[in-house]
Amino acid sequence: MDAVKIGILGLGTVGSGTVNLLIRNSSEISRRLGKNIEIVSIADRNFKKLNDCNAEDFELTTNAYDVVCDPRIQCVAELIGGTDIAHELVLEAISNGKHVVTANKALIAIHGNELFAKARSKGVAIAFEAAVAGGIPIIKAMREGLVGNNIEWLAGIINGTCNFILTEMCNKGRDFADVLVEAQKSGYAESDPTFDIEGIDAAHKLTIMASVAFGMPLKFNKVYTEGISKITQEDVCNAAELGYIIKHLGIARRTEKGVQLRVHPTLITHQTLIANVDGVMNSVFIKSDAAGSTLYYGAGAGSAATASAVVADISDIARTLTCHVDDRVPYLSFQQDTLVDNPIVPMSEVMTSYYLRINLRDMSVASVDIMKILVEQGIGIKMMLQKQPKHDDGALSLIILTQQVTEKYMNIAITQIEALTVIEDPVMRIRIESFS
Amino acid sequence: MDAVKIGILGLGTVGSGTVNLLIRNSSEISRRLGKNIEIVSIADRNFKKLNDCNAEDFELTTNAYDVVCDPRIQCVAELIGGTDIAHELVLEAISNGKHVVTANKALIAIHGNELFAKARSKGVAIAFEAAVAGGIPIIKAMREGLVGNNIEWLAGIINGTCNFILTEMCNKGRDFADVLVEAQKSGYAESDPTFDIEGIDAAHKLTIMASVAFGMPLKFNKVYTEGISKITQEDVCNAAELGYIIKHLGIARRTEKGVQLRVHPTLITHQTLIANVDGVMNSVFIKSDAAGSTLYYGAGAGSAATASAVVADISDIARTLTCHVDDRVPYLSFQQDTLVDNPIVPMSEVMTSYYLRINLRDMSVASVDIMKILVEQGIGIKMMLQKQPKHDDGALSLIILTQQVTEKYMNIAITQIEALTVIEDPVMRIRIESFS
Repeated sequence: MDAVKIGILGLGTVGSGTVNLLIRNSSEISRRLGKNIEIVSIADRNFKKLNDCNAEDFELTTNAYDVVCDPRIQCVAELIGGTDIAHELVLEAISNGKHVVTANKALIAIHGNELFAKARSKGVAIAFEAAVAGGIPIIKAMREGLVGNNIEWLAGIINGTCNFILTEMCNKGRDFADVLVEAQKSGYAESDPTFDIEGIDAAHKLTIMASVAFGMPLKFNKVYTEGISKITQEDVCNAAELGYIIKHLGIARRTEKGVQLRVHPTLITHQTLIANVDGVMNSVFIKSDAAGSTLYYGAGAGSAATASAVVADISDIARTLTCHVDDRVPYLSFQQDTLVDNPIVPMSEVMTSYYLRINLRDMSVASVDIMKILVEQGIGIKMMLQKQPKHDDGALSLIILTQQVTEKYMNIAITQIEALTVIEDPVMRIRIESFS
Repeated sequence: MDAVKIGILGLGTVGSGTVNLLIRNSSEISRRLGKNIEIVSIADRNFKKLNDCNAEDFELTTNAYDVVCDPRIQCVAELIGGTDIAHELVLEAISNGKHVVTANKALIAIHGNELFAKARSKGVAIAFEAAVAGGIPIIKAMREGLVGNNIEWLAGIINGTCNFILTEMCNKGRDFADVLVEAQKSGYAESDPTFDIEGIDAAHKLTIMASVAFGMPLKFNKVYTEGISKITQEDVCNAAELGYIIKHLGIARRTEKGVQLRVHPTLITHQTLIANVDGVMNSVFIKSDAAGSTLYYGAGAGSAATASAVVADISDIARTLTCHVDDRVPYLSFQQDTLVDNPIVPMSEVMTSYYLRINLRDMSVASVDIMKILVEQGIGIKMMLQKQPKHDDGALSLIILTQQVTEKYMNIAITQIEALTVIEDPVMRIRIESFS
């Protein structure tokens, strides 16, 4: 039986998972592919995870250039992560005419435009299913399953750490900081959790999904990014009381003014399917003109789930080794010369409705002043209620759900509200999205 | 720009949707594909739907053989349905070396083995994404996205009519017959609804999914099939009270004894994501060894959603026109010479737990007799409660949730229970599935 010959860069969580999967399911994979996937060599700095998989049977090297320059190797799986050495190695692999599979969302989101141009000129594939939403075949669904569709918008729970924390806060009434510590202990969160909880990881993934959905160059630095570290137990409870669940979403939407690219906590009604996606699981909702609403759900991270996507990409490459580059599915779903440099709508121009939590000392005076400010900015109110916060220091919370308004008017209103003397803390503002 | 030249058989709901989509999104599709999809000709008996799309701009014929024999046409989209004329036309198209796309689940489930063998010998593709779960790219997800996985089992809400009826019964307390009439009026159910409500349509789809998941020939006549027409409002309410929702599922599961293939109403706990899939929507849950639990959701029928899948299949074919047949994704996911003729487990050997509703006149006597019968068959009881049915004619309902047991023992127990003199009606038995 023929074989596609691969090299693996990085024997960490994903790398060892990939080696394990290729060994364990080799017969199932060959039955499907009609070819074997043959690991020619594996590079890692120190092979700390060697015992997690049976990698000792393969050619091992601590010099990654041995792999990317190996003339036997047709396809390199970059499973190192980061944007420094991984970037150099991928460029070198492409230069040497090798196809590349990567699980590296930062690399694609930040350097993808350059990498795709270079890969195109060398006629090789760069596949990155594993970079977004782990084991969910979401890139394939968008690029191929929805090829006939005009994709209108998409929204995803694409960071498992954030979703785990918010789920625990919601279901068990726990505080953010408390859950974060547990998530770190159980391995759901990194020791430096900034990338996850401040939304940067989600922004990488959203960048990739938006370009694939709309056929535009990758624009990571244009993503509005807000994390979950300011969400309190109080907000989660208030949302629940009003029929909402707070989820950390990445949202990309085509509008007349351009494309919205935004990552932030969001109130969604508990009846929507995506509101019921709990724990570390990921899910992406896509609204397109023909298929309508479709949703994809699964594990967004983890050794085996990510390896599943890596092996799928290797298999696609194995099937198209002899194809002309133009017959392959284009990197960003659209042929490179047809990518459109869509303008990105600044966050101040995005229209949405809001949940506001305003902590104040004197309700009677303040509520009138607050109403006045909202009215002046043309902000309609859908619901308003007064809450006694847990820490009973005499302060009260005013919870307001607004009608849709352009964010710049909301920004003005919030600045003015915060200037009122009776206001205790910064105003908490969480956007609300409807999935209907 | 190059074009792939297609012919369309049948200008009904799906055919006109496909023509509409190809016209409306032609630029989006060409931007992705790098090729145009050119409709060469369209065949239909009477062109009643001609006004639903702009098909009058194309070559039209009432003789479908004009299309399948047309030397200009590379790919035929069979959108007629049924297993008579569609079968003949597809065979003729294959004989003439044309690739085939079909939305016809009955054709694939019943004649797929023959068609695939013939297509293989002629080196052409048969694509059938549109045959299962409409706009959800579920065949692609299984065949390509999960190519590295050992698929353990899958369960799907794959008939929108059944799901609509059960959702209305559950959410609005309506009766089966009442909702069915509405579903027929609003076009969600056919005037002869047998295929949908008795589970035959779901069995067609399950047949296809199971073969794709496990790499075995299609075995439609081995599917255990039970519809929803016996489900009463009482059962739906009892289930809800116990924390369950009744869904009509198609289930395929690999076990040591063979493959289970079964379509029947099922109690699932309301916390599972699939229990929250409402109305006419479809959803498929897949459990595989690497990706873990993944779920796919979307519109399972309708003109545009099904057309989305047809266009995706045409696009895949357009990309692999020059490929050797061995480099294409195999029809049933696995290379034809590696399909394994797995034994199918008879329903009597399937192990599951049960919801039983036993209507009886005298609780005090009967409950002891019933317990005795269950104990003798080794059937453990998880929960038991007594209900007063709506129609208060003195009869009572005994609701029992059992532990897992092999169905043959449950069959014996039910026969014996029904022989008791105090029993009013046949025992209602609904299987319970856990998704954890």
